[in-house]
Amino acid sequence: MTSRVATAISIPFTEWVDANAERFIERLKEAVAIPSISGDSARRDDVFNMAHWLDGQLKSLGVDTKLVDLGTQNVDGKEIPLPPALLGQIGDFTSEAGKKKKTILIYGHFDVQPASKSDGWDSDPFVLTTVGDKLVGRGSTDDKGPILGWLNVLQYHHDNQKELPVNLKFCFEGMEESGSEGLDDLIVKEAKGYFAGVDYVCISDNYWLNDRTPVLTYGLRGLCYFSVTVSGPAWDLHSGVFGGTVYEPMTDLVTLLSKLVDNKGKILIPGVVDRVPSVTSEEIKLYEKLDYSIADIDKAVGAPIALSSDKVEVLMGRMRNPSLSLHGIEGAFSGEGAKTVIPAKVSGKFSIRLVPDQDPKEINKLVKVYLESEFAKLNSKSKLEVKPLSDGKPWVADYKNPNYEAARVATLLVYGKEPDFTREGGSIPVTLTFSDALGVNVLLLPMGRGDDGAHSTNEKLNRSNFIEGTKLLGLYLYEIGASINIDPKY
Amino acid sequence: MTSRVATAISIPFTEWVDANAERFIERLKEAVAIPSISGDSARRDDVFNMAHWLDGQLKSLGVDTKLVDLGTQNVDGKEIPLPPALLGQIGDFTSEAGKKKKTILIYGHFDVQPASKSDGWDSDPFVLTTVGDKLVGRGSTDDKGPILGWLNVLQYHHDNQKELPVNLKFCFEGMEESGSEGLDDLIVKEAKGYFAGVDYVCISDNYWLNDRTPVLTYGLRGLCYFSVTVSGPAWDLHSGVFGGTVYEPMTDLVTLLSKLVDNKGKILIPGVVDRVPSVTSEEIKLYEKLDYSIADIDKAVGAPIALSSDKVEVLMGRMRNPSLSLHGIEGAFSGEGAKTVIPAKVSGKFSIRLVPDQDPKEINKLVKVYLESEFAKLNSKSKLEVKPLSDGKPWVADYKNPNYEAARVATLLVYGKEPDFTREGGSIPVTLTFSDALGVNVLLLPMGRGDDGAHSTNEKLNRSNFIEGTKLLGLYLYEIGASINIDPKY
Repeated sequence: MTSRVATAISIPFTEWVDANAERFIERLKEAVAIPSISGDSARRDDVFNMAHWLDGQLKSLGVDTKLVDLGTQNVDGKEIPLPPALLGQIGDFTSEAGKKKKTILIYGHFDVQPASKSDGWDSDPFVLTTVGDKLVGRGSTDDKGPILGWLNVLQYHHDNQKELPVNLKFCFEGMEESGSEGLDDLIVKEAKGYFAGVDYVCISDNYWLNDRTPVLTYGLRGLCYFSVTVSGPAWDLHSGVFGGTVYEPMTDLVTLLSKLVDNKGKILIPGVVDRVPSVTSEEIKLYEKLDYSIADIDKAVGAPIALSSDKVEVLMGRMRNPSLSLHGIEGAFSGEGAKTVIPAKVSGKFSIRLVPDQDPKEINKLVKVYLESEFAKLNSKSKLEVKPLSDGKPWVADYKNPNYEAARVATLLVYGKEPDFTREGGSIPVTLTFSDALGVNVLLLPMGRGDDGAHSTNEKLNRSNFIEGTKLLGLYLYEIGASINIDPKY
Repeated sequence: MTSRVATAISIPFTEWVDANAERFIERLKEAVAIPSISGDSARRDDVFNMAHWLDGQLKSLGVDTKLVDLGTQNVDGKEIPLPPALLGQIGDFTSEAGKKKKTILIYGHFDVQPASKSDGWDSDPFVLTTVGDKLVGRGSTDDKGPILGWLNVLQYHHDNQKELPVNLKFCFEGMEESGSEGLDDLIVKEAKGYFAGVDYVCISDNYWLNDRTPVLTYGLRGLCYFSVTVSGPAWDLHSGVFGGTVYEPMTDLVTLLSKLVDNKGKILIPGVVDRVPSVTSEEIKLYEKLDYSIADIDKAVGAPIALSSDKVEVLMGRMRNPSLSLHGIEGAFSGEGAKTVIPAKVSGKFSIRLVPDQDPKEINKLVKVYLESEFAKLNSKSKLEVKPLSDGKPWVADYKNPNYEAARVATLLVYGKEPDFTREGGSIPVTLTFSDALGVNVLLLPMGRGDDGAHSTNEKLNRSNFIEGTKLLGLYLYEIGASINIDPKY
């Protein structure tokens, strides 16, 4: 344990957090009650309401805020307003002493995934419900809980008239669950404006690997998502009348999809894995150390279907190797029962998770060339179209940076154990935008557990994660502050 | 032209039909106005209404009818009443002279496919609308038009107090578009009861090969429909978190589906085509004679995608060879756009059209054995289940039977040309039930054209097909009657 100052303040701050736990949970209840579903245009007003609610909270805690209009979004041919981004700052940005402080940019999102009782929730998803240690409700862990963790930290300083150990900037958005529309442009535009002077970025929007051990995350996989369309007849045909007389798009599509990946996860597209470095023995040690077992993955997927019985291989499969998944087919019969249709136009959907040094542009090209050459071999009268639907680069940060060191020490102080250093298999595109546009170290500092069910029914945040997580965020700021020898007066 | 009697009566009957055309179209309008959609339980009352309307029509024409309760049907866990079958008879079944007459059993169905303006109809599907020669409306050609053709024939004899040349029995159902639930049992039960003494069956519920040449149909393909399910995780997974760590059901399923058929239509399942006889030169001549061209199939499917440029091969692909079509996948992502899901349980749907002497039971077994052995080769931790969803045997009739000969001559009289003798690529399961249960020759005598769009938007029956088709049905009965030397007094 190498904290230089945090121990000096940890007792009053952490005690105060414990004493105010019920008040914090009440505030989380208020936030969860606003059904700010960005993916449902009928709920757009609620996303706005959520922005205003959060703006009010920040203002009451002394944060200087502004709501930034991000323009409109086309939904089913209709332009509807995008929810605003909420920017804020608090601290001393002018005095000599203040300028010495580090400036941390905090990102979070106040929109949520869709949810309704009929999806199978045990309680109203928009009424925060306590079940044992669990706080159940949509947005509890993704991402209202973590945002409110920051509010809790601010509350301590506000109520006790204490100066923050760092300067803070905030960037909260309301479209994360719907592609973060409009945000990238804002970040790039404000990199040398509103976000000038930022030293570190901290994002609390992912999860522990399990339900036991806190985590710092320093990598994310990228993504290339494809639609491969085979089309033939001008309309759907009856298989009785036309089966055996024409080229059927489904036959070609299924053949193409079968040539992308084998069931052991090996990607069959030439060149795609060429830029993935071989694993080093040092790396293997890194994965060996992680608190994870085959039992964890069995539990997470509900069946014994891991590709390997070696935990290191499974972890590398998730964190440092690319993967290809087949998601489905658009345009084919997808209902229950039997329908004797020859679908006229079918689009296979698949995606590749990318790791350094894979480059989305190169991958898009390799996939297109491969599918077109495989299709040519089929000598079909159908037509092929390969379309990249979206892509994002992989991201890896230097986890020996002071930003991570501060979070590591804070974790040790709060949880009494070293965090696991992980890479995530998924993508949080804004991470890369911050990293590229601001050119600073970005830290992913999760609050919730691996079993929180962020996008599922009965999403929850453990009460203990909310409260200890609040302490973690606070102590992280103190450790950052301490790292430049700010006087430990707090 | 070898008519023995029909010419003697063709002038007054056919002239009378022409003179009453508007009246017949008005009656078709009434029938189309009843939205008797058997597949929509909310419309079940309308199917009953349609049964009662048709019952009233038959009674008014002197037919002795009865509505037969077929029990109930389970729809979404609720038992709802099945529409009744409508049985009827007219003729002289008791006197010596009467008993000498042939008895024809006529089948038709009074239910229709779903339809709503929003599907893309140019007019209200339940308002019969005249567009040039076309009578547009749901059920116009499938199968209300043909049923009403029979009513028109009865109308002539009723209004002119003429004796029918044959005895008639009717079997009309209201569930054909929904699997003919309950009907098979009734036919088998009444084979030696209500249907005793039937000499021939005539079904008018299919279509010409094109829009030019009338058709008599003597064969139908059978069907084996399969669902092949691969399942792994207990719930859908996020491809970011789990891609590269577990066996993915979609990968195995797509591999299995790719091993069923090649894109030239060749079925890859060992044994499946073993019972299909080699084509003879006599058979080839049969297909050469048919009024059909590659341009016809190009037009029917809206694109130049025929498997062959030889019309005989295309016709044999539809009529006398088995085919395998992939219909789709249940449980995978099937929407627009991008979703990064690893589906937990996916069911591929495919079916094989059967021809003599393929046997559904044997095919079901061959498919199961093949898929299980291919799946075993994949060494997957996922689970496989192969489920036959439905099957029906192929059917071929003797087209040299007097039943066909009568229809051939009637066609010649009405249309001035020989009919094409065709086999249908699809299935009309009740055909086989009649054939097997009654042990008599079954004739498929279509009224409508190949471009009627039976299950599509803007379904139509050409006015000329309705009127000439009425004449065809009438003259067919006269030819059957003449074939046993009934005095040509009509």
